[in-house]
Amino acid sequence: MRIGVLTGGGDCPGLNAVIRGIVRKGVQSYDYEFVGFCDGWRGPLENQTMRLDVPAVRGILPRGGTILGSSRTNPLKVEGGVRRVTENLAKHEIDALVAIGGEDTLGVAAELSRAGVRVVGVPKTIDNDLDGTDYTFGFDTAVNICTEAIDRLHTTAESHRRVLVVEVMGRHAGWIALHSGIAGGANVILIPEHPFDLDRVCGWVENRFKINYAPIVVVAEGAVPATGRMVTKDDSLDAFGHVRLSGIGEWLASEIEHRTGKEARTTVLGHIQRGGTPTAFDRWLATRFGLHAIDAVRDGDFGTMVALRGTDIVRAPLDVATARIKTVDPSLYEEFDVFFG
Amino acid sequence: MRIGVLTGGGDCPGLNAVIRGIVRKGVQSYDYEFVGFCDGWRGPLENQTMRLDVPAVRGILPRGGTILGSSRTNPLKVEGGVRRVTENLAKHEIDALVAIGGEDTLGVAAELSRAGVRVVGVPKTIDNDLDGTDYTFGFDTAVNICTEAIDRLHTTAESHRRVLVVEVMGRHAGWIALHSGIAGGANVILIPEHPFDLDRVCGWVENRFKINYAPIVVVAEGAVPATGRMVTKDDSLDAFGHVRLSGIGEWLASEIEHRTGKEARTTVLGHIQRGGTPTAFDRWLATRFGLHAIDAVRDGDFGTMVALRGTDIVRAPLDVATARIKTVDPSLYEEFDVFFG
Amino acid sequence: MRIGVLTGGGDCPGLNAVIRGIVRKGVQSYDYEFVGFCDGWRGPLENQTMRLDVPAVRGILPRGGTILGSSRTNPLKVEGGVRRVTENLAKHEIDALVAIGGEDTLGVAAELSRAGVRVVGVPKTIDNDLDGTDYTFGFDTAVNICTEAIDRLHTTAESHRRVLVVEVMGRHAGWIALHSGIAGGANVILIPEHPFDLDRVCGWVENRFKINYAPIVVVAEGAVPATGRMVTKDDSLDAFGHVRLSGIGEWLASEIEHRTGKEARTTVLGHIQRGGTPTAFDRWLATRFGLHAIDAVRDGDFGTMVALRGTDIVRAPLDVATARIKTVDPSLYEEFDVFFG
Amino acid sequence: MRIGVLTGGGDCPGLNAVIRGIVRKGVQSYDYEFVGFCDGWRGPLENQTMRLDVPAVRGILPRGGTILGSSRTNPLKVEGGVRRVTENLAKHEIDALVAIGGEDTLGVAAELSRAGVRVVGVPKTIDNDLDGTDYTFGFDTAVNICTEAIDRLHTTAESHRRVLVVEVMGRHAGWIALHSGIAGGANVILIPEHPFDLDRVCGWVENRFKINYAPIVVVAEGAVPATGRMVTKDDSLDAFGHVRLSGIGEWLASEIEHRTGKEARTTVLGHIQRGGTPTAFDRWLATRFGLHAIDAVRDGDFGTMVALRGTDIVRAPLDVATARIKTVDPSLYEEFDVFFG
Repeated sequence: MRIGVLTGGGDCPGLNAVIRGIVRKGVQSYDYEFVGFCDGWRGPLENQTMRLDVPAVRGILPRGGTILGSSRTNPLKVEGGVRRVTENLAKHEIDALVAIGGEDTLGVAAELSRAGVRVVGVPKTIDNDLDGTDYTFGFDTAVNICTEAIDRLHTTAESHRRVLVVEVMGRHAGWIALHSGIAGGANVILIPEHPFDLDRVCGWVENRFKINYAPIVVVAEGAVPATGRMVTKDDSLDAFGHVRLSGIGEWLASEIEHRTGKEARTTVLGHIQRGGTPTAFDRWLATRFGLHAIDAVRDGDFGTMVALRGTDIVRAPLDVATARIKTVDPSLYEEFDVFFG
Repeated sequence: MRIGVLTGGGDCPGLNAVIRGIVRKGVQSYDYEFVGFCDGWRGPLENQTMRLDVPAVRGILPRGGTILGSSRTNPLKVEGGVRRVTENLAKHEIDALVAIGGEDTLGVAAELSRAGVRVVGVPKTIDNDLDGTDYTFGFDTAVNICTEAIDRLHTTAESHRRVLVVEVMGRHAGWIALHSGIAGGANVILIPEHPFDLDRVCGWVENRFKINYAPIVVVAEGAVPATGRMVTKDDSLDAFGHVRLSGIGEWLASEIEHRTGKEARTTVLGHIQRGGTPTAFDRWLATRFGLHAIDAVRDGDFGTMVALRGTDIVRAPLDVATARIKTVDPSLYEEFDVFFG
Repeated sequence: MRIGVLTGGGDCPGLNAVIRGIVRKGVQSYDYEFVGFCDGWRGPLENQTMRLDVPAVRGILPRGGTILGSSRTNPLKVEGGVRRVTENLAKHEIDALVAIGGEDTLGVAAELSRAGVRVVGVPKTIDNDLDGTDYTFGFDTAVNICTEAIDRLHTTAESHRRVLVVEVMGRHAGWIALHSGIAGGANVILIPEHPFDLDRVCGWVENRFKINYAPIVVVAEGAVPATGRMVTKDDSLDAFGHVRLSGIGEWLASEIEHRTGKEARTTVLGHIQRGGTPTAFDRWLATRFGLHAIDAVRDGDFGTMVALRGTDIVRAPLDVATARIKTVDPSLYEEFDVFFG
Repeated sequence: MRIGVLTGGGDCPGLNAVIRGIVRKGVQSYDYEFVGFCDGWRGPLENQTMRLDVPAVRGILPRGGTILGSSRTNPLKVEGGVRRVTENLAKHEIDALVAIGGEDTLGVAAELSRAGVRVVGVPKTIDNDLDGTDYTFGFDTAVNICTEAIDRLHTTAESHRRVLVVEVMGRHAGWIALHSGIAGGANVILIPEHPFDLDRVCGWVENRFKINYAPIVVVAEGAVPATGRMVTKDDSLDAFGHVRLSGIGEWLASEIEHRTGKEARTTVLGHIQRGGTPTAFDRWLATRFGLHAIDAVRDGDFGTMVALRGTDIVRAPLDVATARIKTVDPSLYEEFDVFFG
């Protein structure tokens, strides 16, 4: 058997651990051969491959990124894309494909599966917003990075009288903000699922100063105010006429300063949340995803993806992951309201 | 309502996060008063208490250890112990008790519950060997500490020609060894559930050198060889006639050196695995355990403990946790055999 | 003898280690009594003090921030400020004062010293820009935090095709940017001492893509372009008419995107650089500064500050530290030019 | 010009950063070619080389270990060794050699230099015991690893009533024990330079319990008791007749238990102190050592090594480093005596 492997979408700690798990078990237990497709779906689309064997995966377990490269290329959006992908798979005599990626990557996989390609998926999202699995790898790493950042801000909050705003990832779901905000002991946590009331946020901020402690505000990049409207990029051109990028974090700090008269400072963690070595949890989960994905291939259980359910790795239909975004349930958010303000 | 809280047994990162969750929600949502009992069951046994209110739990979330202190005192093993505990609880007008601890602590809680004390348990074990819950807090921290140690050994393994043995916690269950060994990319993982064959271990060690790479061996402190017998403490007196402590790690390194002729070095992580700040996962889990434990008190759901099931916090009978030790299933251990040797 | 202690200016990891060193040695070796003045010079100005003895400094060694609090209050800028400070020192029967702080704090100390107050200084600056000492505590911690952030960006740089910009502290001196940029393997390092040529930066960025690797740009917050002019805050009002804060990091990312057509992303580390637990180096240096400062008091060597010279702690006149800002020498910056671009 | 490079002796974080600095500057600024000799002096002795160019050093800055491999092979102890080395250097048309290593490696370099080989040295010792330089790379990393371990033990020390012993590296010099012990707030620090009085150690241990806090004891592997004698390996055979390895840490814990009646636990950090990614300080220092070593080659300044003096990199005669071991001065050790006991 010849198995193709690709990684698509954004960077995520644990991708290499998945690849290693697939290859080690595929070669050693089932005597499979592997072909690495480069840069996500661009690989099979443009026929770019790389060697993928046991020596190639040596030492990659603790490394962030992906040795296969990644891209957001979507063959469904390319004229004749699906046909070119299937032709290139045939050219390499690929018996089955393992696609590791998020909503978009798995969406393509599901479409190809319907078109007869034998494919198994591995769900990947730093934001933890894929349905059908308790967690995905990379999320725990991101949460730990954000939590450590919040930890460091606490000592400054104790010594100074400043509002400290931390902007974390999460365009559509607030999982990183909620987990790191709770783990870090933040006083305000703003997530996309709950448009926030700026007056209430400022009230919490002022309460906090009353007990002689500066507030820490964690805000997901996709959080929005309930009223008024967000400044869009176009509203804000600089002196050169270029677009000024300014995220919700800086906007919020500016608003809080303006309304409460307290100095506010912003930390924007950006891509450091998705880079670097994975935590032990993410390596464990990613390794098991890899081992179980290749077992699904051996079982001929195509059109499925591996998923975490409790402490078990199970299989779920590929379309489960892409049917809807898994957002933070209101009841979970409210569970923590004693910590706010 | 007046609620007593105590923490028993060994140190575990996340204990303070549980206490903070209990007190913050108890005071702010339900207007409860709290009494902290010092040093586990010794507190109610010897009537030692401390103040436990919102200011007392400020800033403790990221701190290891427990502000209440701990001990292994067991009132069931003390003449009239249960009576003294119930009398002291009555003296402080305690309406309900939250007991945070492992097998022993929850065993006492279960016994007191049968004797009519209104008690809710929170399961705690660094070793992850309590039944009835997917995970307990502290375990993820321990696994990360061990994984980081293994990571560091890899660069030495690449540069030198030495066998590197790491001894980790786990007297009866190999969870820490298995998780950190897999996450760290160890070549040999020895756990109490599977008595090991020393010849096979030495074979793996020698295989590893053949591909020009020194082996890393992770061994749980409770692992035992399948044949021959372990040296006991009494076999080994030093020149002063005192007992020489020597764990399985040093014994194993010595045996491997003797049999393979390769130099071996040992790292014994000891108590650093159970100290220091908890990971984000452990703070999240411990905080939720605290919030849900006080909800169980409010619901009058006594004789239960909180537990993790998937991503949900549920309640389970107190005796579930103490009925048997949760060990590593053979099928899980075998899942990883492609990585050994 | 009664000794006053205060900490002024911005937060800096190691402040508590200095305080602990002063108090432990002062009490145990010289039998001194201590008075803690709160919030920098505001303490002696407004007569706010706190208890400062051996129990008060227990456990503070690894903690960021300062137990004495801090402020930027400057008694030289307050009508009758110096007189009020000296009166309050007299009121508490202070025989000598230890002032821990940066340019401003030590400037006040120097002025008070000229006015006859017996004062010893301890230099503090996260930016490492105080003259007269090889290093100050807090700097090593900041550099490590920035370096870890850059490390994490490398894996993303390998997997994606994005320019990654990291904005670090340093208004007047580029020490943090230079040290962390070199330690992190950045491709472009921009510091206040060397106004940068945007075309050259974009050239470096494009070179980097040619070898199939995305560039990492480290920029000190005080770095400025050599030509053109920076957008000022006033140029940029948002849709609500409020000032939009946007630092050099986001401005630079926007310019690079505009000029090279490559996507750019920004990380703004902000206050996390000055919070949290100090590194071992900073704890060692801060502890020694504390021990030597109290020795200077005992020796009656007032009007001086402690300083690091090689591996020795020496004493320097207080005004040395405040005479000029220690900036990055051009020859040091050029030492690293093989790594740029 | 063709330059040979080799790394000898024990593992040390920063070796790769030195190699990268040498090659980047040598190739880009001076147009040198490089030959990597494998495994220390074994490389030129047995004519084993590897490719060493700019692509070969890409990405190695943050990685522990050494891409060139290392060994303790000493050509001075091999019949005809020096001649074979010089012949092999000639065979590869080596114009100059950069030798990175400790006492032994630099001792060989000094000898070869006297025999006419054009050699520049870079001092390396995890233990910081080489004379002629303020610090060497790797030491700061080791100290931070030990300090983090001690930090974690503090929370356990607060919750339990156990003596916690940490054994760290340092056969002949106590630098790691002293720096990490002070940075970690240990209560007892034992170093090879000061044979310890076991009664005094036990007195300190008991004092500590009186203030309700368990003691942390840091002991260098080469520390020895002043009276009585250490158990040697030969005194201690196990039930199989094999040598039992037991270091000073476990011996000390056993003695303290025996004499004070308090439980004691040991952590033996072992090789994790010399593995893994270097700190920012070590990367900075190692990078500068590399850049300056190749400058020394260009200047024809052979028979020297680079060294740190304050914040400057200087050159020192090769024999300075090997003339004597740099030990902890009694006055420095006494500087910290207020923290003991």
